[in-house]
Amino acid sequence: MRIERLALIGTGLIGGSLALALREQGAVGEVVGYSRRLDTRLAAQRLGLIDRPADSIAEAVAGADMVFLATPVTAMDAVLEELAGCLPEGALITDGGSVKGAVVERARTHLAPEQLARFVPGHPIAGRERSGPEAATADLYRDHRVILTPLPENAAEDVARVEAMWQAVGARVERLDVAHHDHVLAATSHLPHAAAFAMVSALTRLAERYEVFRYAAGGFRDFTRIASSDPVMWRDICLDNRDEILGLMDHYRDELDCLRDLIAERDGEGLERYLTEAKDVRDALYPAADVEGDEPGA
Amino acid sequence: MRIERLALIGTGLIGGSLALALREQGAVGEVVGYSRRLDTRLAAQRLGLIDRPADSIAEAVAGADMVFLATPVTAMDAVLEELAGCLPEGALITDGGSVKGAVVERARTHLAPEQLARFVPGHPIAGRERSGPEAATADLYRDHRVILTPLPENAAEDVARVEAMWQAVGARVERLDVAHHDHVLAATSHLPHAAAFAMVSALTRLAERYEVFRYAAGGFRDFTRIASSDPVMWRDICLDNRDEILGLMDHYRDELDCLRDLIAERDGEGLERYLTEAKDVRDALYPAADVEGDEPGA
Repeated sequence: MRIERLALIGTGLIGGSLALALREQGAVGEVVGYSRRLDTRLAAQRLGLIDRPADSIAEAVAGADMVFLATPVTAMDAVLEELAGCLPEGALITDGGSVKGAVVERARTHLAPEQLARFVPGHPIAGRERSGPEAATADLYRDHRVILTPLPENAAEDVARVEAMWQAVGARVERLDVAHHDHVLAATSHLPHAAAFAMVSALTRLAERYEVFRYAAGGFRDFTRIASSDPVMWRDICLDNRDEILGLMDHYRDELDCLRDLIAERDGEGLERYLTEAKDVRDALYPAADVEGDEPGA
Repeated sequence: MRIERLALIGTGLIGGSLALALREQGAVGEVVGYSRRLDTRLAAQRLGLIDRPADSIAEAVAGADMVFLATPVTAMDAVLEELAGCLPEGALITDGGSVKGAVVERARTHLAPEQLARFVPGHPIAGRERSGPEAATADLYRDHRVILTPLPENAAEDVARVEAMWQAVGARVERLDVAHHDHVLAATSHLPHAAAFAMVSALTRLAERYEVFRYAAGGFRDFTRIASSDPVMWRDICLDNRDEILGLMDHYRDELDCLRDLIAERDGEGLERYLTEAKDVRDALYPAADVEGDEPGA
């Protein structure tokens, strides 16, 4: 697999890491990058993520055979609209958006049918809390999952080419349909993020917040780590995957109520069964777990 | 500070680690250990945690000047009852239980007034997911917080002596009153544990559970790590700190509802404010955070 000219729309962590990794694999000729902010694209050039900064989306995609959309999902609307007017024939498009339904909807709004057929939506399940070009690394996607959500309009060989690009940088590629992706990610990522943000907020609103946080230990640190994620990105994910997230938040609230009832009723046997079942599932998922806890385990 | 003879009631992770650390500091003469299970006390001896296993609580505490109760909290009832009949004069008692109100209540039930005066309740905020004597390490408490919750009956020099013991093994000792301890721990530890157990359960109950878990990434792993904790210990904590935990679960549910409403109402501005506030608090708590995430941050 080789890309002659890769156009990055968005030259931060996600786009920059893909470019670095493809270059390391000798899988890309030239990388041209556009970011809305001049300093971001200049930084990307200085850091060697891109060969050449472009002043517009049109300039970035001219002559490209692969276009990677790595902007925040909310920017996609404007990006896709502009892309529709300047996409070279034969160029494939893929993206890194966290919610696929919303991206596909925007693509259907703006792209011409023959352009839409060349758009293979994707979602690399990788990231760091830091963002921006400085955070890019060549191994961000290695051994990470990338989910492609091909459209009925896509040609099989185009999907295979995007898949090969991700495989070239060490990712494990899977395919899901759009709705299934958005449901699964709501469960495994969006809901836990919502729960972590809410947990920090809950403790913040306790009158004695500073003293409470003073005694927070390792368990709390890990539990709330994802609440340090980018609020603007998570605002957009919440809005874009609204219905799935609301459904899962209700499901989670029911589950909390169920645990609450066991505690309220002092049902020791039921509690032990409940906690054991959760532990067994969790241990089966992550068998090697042995990290520092915050409560005695004697 | 020097202990001539330390009696460990419970020779697992919590008791064994204290003994190892005191010995490393040359702060203890002999360590005698009792565990309900014979194999546990023999393992503790073989691993060098204790000098001598005892066949009963009475044998363990004979001649001891410090007694450390490191059994599960539910066992405390029987332990304290037995201790009341055999505690040598002059011996101090402390413990490692996660909920102080329940332990103190049991101590008030079983101990004679002059014995209760020598019981200085404590809670080392340290642990590992593994337990048992094999998991004990001399550095478990180094740079960790130990909260003492002295009783009105305690003499100042007795509290100081227990404090000095913990300081000798590198812990940072703080004092809180019993109710305050149980509230603060409910907020920073018990509530997050409940939320993590419920999160794993919620996903387990989704029909497509295996496929859902298949796509779980780093954020989910960290968020649910504490759901791998010992279910029996957590059953007991839930029961022992029931009222605080119930109150905080309600508080947390209100907070989730508040976030849910912002999403349901598509209130982008309110959402961004909500998520930003949580992130700012969390970042201030753990300024060095930069670990792997599971969502693009571009």
